[in-house]
Amino acid sequence: MLNFTFKNQTEVLFGKGQLSEVASRLPHNAKVLFLYGGGSIKKNGIYDKTVEALGDAEVVEFHGVEPNPEFSTLMKAVEVARDNKVNFILAVGGGSVIDGAKFVAAAVNFAGDPWDILIKEAPFENPLPIGAVLTLPATGSESNGNSVVNRKETSQKRAFSSESVQPVFAVLDPEFTYSLPMRQVSNGVVDAFVHVIEQYLTYSVNAPLQDRFAEGILQTLIEEGPKSLATPTDYDVRANVMWSATMALNGLIGKGVPQDWGTHMIGHELTALHGLDHAVTLAIVLPSLMYVQRDSKKEKILQLGERVFNISEHNEEKAIDLTIKAVQDFFETMQVKTRLSDYDIDKTAIDGLVDNLERNGLTALGEHGDIDLVKAREILTLAA
Amino acid sequence: MLNFTFKNQTEVLFGKGQLSEVASRLPHNAKVLFLYGGGSIKKNGIYDKTVEALGDAEVVEFHGVEPNPEFSTLMKAVEVARDNKVNFILAVGGGSVIDGAKFVAAAVNFAGDPWDILIKEAPFENPLPIGAVLTLPATGSESNGNSVVNRKETSQKRAFSSESVQPVFAVLDPEFTYSLPMRQVSNGVVDAFVHVIEQYLTYSVNAPLQDRFAEGILQTLIEEGPKSLATPTDYDVRANVMWSATMALNGLIGKGVPQDWGTHMIGHELTALHGLDHAVTLAIVLPSLMYVQRDSKKEKILQLGERVFNISEHNEEKAIDLTIKAVQDFFETMQVKTRLSDYDIDKTAIDGLVDNLERNGLTALGEHGDIDLVKAREILTLAA
Repeated sequence: MLNFTFKNQTEVLFGKGQLSEVASRLPHNAKVLFLYGGGSIKKNGIYDKTVEALGDAEVVEFHGVEPNPEFSTLMKAVEVARDNKVNFILAVGGGSVIDGAKFVAAAVNFAGDPWDILIKEAPFENPLPIGAVLTLPATGSESNGNSVVNRKETSQKRAFSSESVQPVFAVLDPEFTYSLPMRQVSNGVVDAFVHVIEQYLTYSVNAPLQDRFAEGILQTLIEEGPKSLATPTDYDVRANVMWSATMALNGLIGKGVPQDWGTHMIGHELTALHGLDHAVTLAIVLPSLMYVQRDSKKEKILQLGERVFNISEHNEEKAIDLTIKAVQDFFETMQVKTRLSDYDIDKTAIDGLVDNLERNGLTALGEHGDIDLVKAREILTLAA
Repeated sequence: MLNFTFKNQTEVLFGKGQLSEVASRLPHNAKVLFLYGGGSIKKNGIYDKTVEALGDAEVVEFHGVEPNPEFSTLMKAVEVARDNKVNFILAVGGGSVIDGAKFVAAAVNFAGDPWDILIKEAPFENPLPIGAVLTLPATGSESNGNSVVNRKETSQKRAFSSESVQPVFAVLDPEFTYSLPMRQVSNGVVDAFVHVIEQYLTYSVNAPLQDRFAEGILQTLIEEGPKSLATPTDYDVRANVMWSATMALNGLIGKGVPQDWGTHMIGHELTALHGLDHAVTLAIVLPSLMYVQRDSKKEKILQLGERVFNISEHNEEKAIDLTIKAVQDFFETMQVKTRLSDYDIDKTAIDGLVDNLERNGLTALGEHGDIDLVKAREILTLAA
């Protein structure tokens, strides 16, 4: 096992009705920036419930944070936060809104150009505290310090990470996911699945507990994911998917083990250049990445096949093929297509994607840093 | 799944060499009460390493905290802490030292008789912050708020729990366990195993992820526990046991599911009246408790048998018997005997044990509150 430090400061408030705890978790004299997305929370009632839950706190609203939150939009929110001197951000939505809140929190008291936080790892001070009300289980953003921000004008999708912008609390009410469009449910399950894979499917460092936790999340997503499409208002199913998605990326399962994240990095370019949903990019890239990395990931792919997909093929190469197929089949079962051609992207797009990886300095990806631009091209070509 | 709130504030510093991080985690102007047990840390070098790691901090020592930490001993530590106006406690040892540190932390600024914290849930204010350096993986005390204190003069073993006394950091260096006596290694594995069982072996609330995490810890302890006796200086084995024991009782796996703790409560009386090691009491009580509660725990016992012990018996009653036997065999493999008679305690002792349960108000134990004094007697009689 590798050395690690682990701490997760987010207080998870899980279950129906937990939104009512929010007021008791706000700072004294709270002046809250209530940040949300496209307005679906007005239709499904979560907006009204949030307003009620905020009680007597002074509230300023900002809405319109889009999927793959856009830098220019978030900068408008930063202005609103500054103008109104808010001292707390309540992010109500999925990973994009919560990721956006983290960027706003970091940018508010930042003196220079906040884009530097994303591209130069510029240090920032006194970020605003954040609370999260999760409506879409997927990214784990509700209990980690990660944030990904998109910038259309430069075709860039960049991330930063800091414990200082991790939500102090996160309300996880499975009922809040009942009205989600199926596409978002599908994407969420695929996203969470790949988060686990990125921290599991590397090489063994003799950390059997981490492996079993990862496998437990994968098994639960495989079992409950399709049910969450079939019976959208089954509370326990939605609860199990929600808790799995949070555990997939709250830091725990990746402690003491190598991590990959190559699928995410290559996928980010597909979003940046072609606007694909984040989860879709993962479903496209992962199977091909597994295929190209089948030798260095051999032991773990075999373990995944055997323990998670119950594959009992003795020929190792065949077992690896079957496991990759099983992953791909799971994505398709979740109604997420896994080829570039499914999204009308042909091979001529690959040059641009590889160029963007190079521009962003992403030339040594994966747990061994051996996914260079040649391998990235191979992966994208296989995914065509 | 049941509603829950979950937060774990302890920063885990895991791996070889992590003790050197301690100085950077102390408060400014730290005046540290360095609390430890019987002196084994002087023989194995951990004492010297701790003194070095404390750097320039002002340090007052208190040693002699015994297994099943004794109220009178801890009250002496409280006096030392008060006399020296310490502002931090560094607990170096196993669960007893860390549990003891929590009580000292709570008692230092408590105006009345600190025993009330244990028997009357008396509220306390301004507890001292605690850091832990774990030398014995077992209780999970290093990252939870639980404390159990013994009082010989009244034959009582009582607990309190508060997030406010949970360690702010915990150093988990697997090498620090190399010199442990085998009896303590055995006890630690059994203790951690039963912690998981108490949060798992109840009834199903459709929480498959919690089940799989629990099963993952059990499987890892079953796999690595015997190795930790056979090859005491295998780093990864000790690391895996250590991380499993922490995860067994840091709060995570018990969230959203019912819990039992009947085995612990009955076991505590065996320690209070007969001085048995804590883990020994669990190894004695659990198999008999499973036998007596076999109907209400049926579904989970069968799941435990199938998933953790690979029992494929179709007759359910036989499968339950085989599972109970497998648990008992595991304890014996860990060299912990499982009958009262193995410790020269005969049936005449049972009256006193049941009387003590009654005196402590422990008359409705278990996840259904149905382990009354009659059932407790039945369990103890079966364990004779």
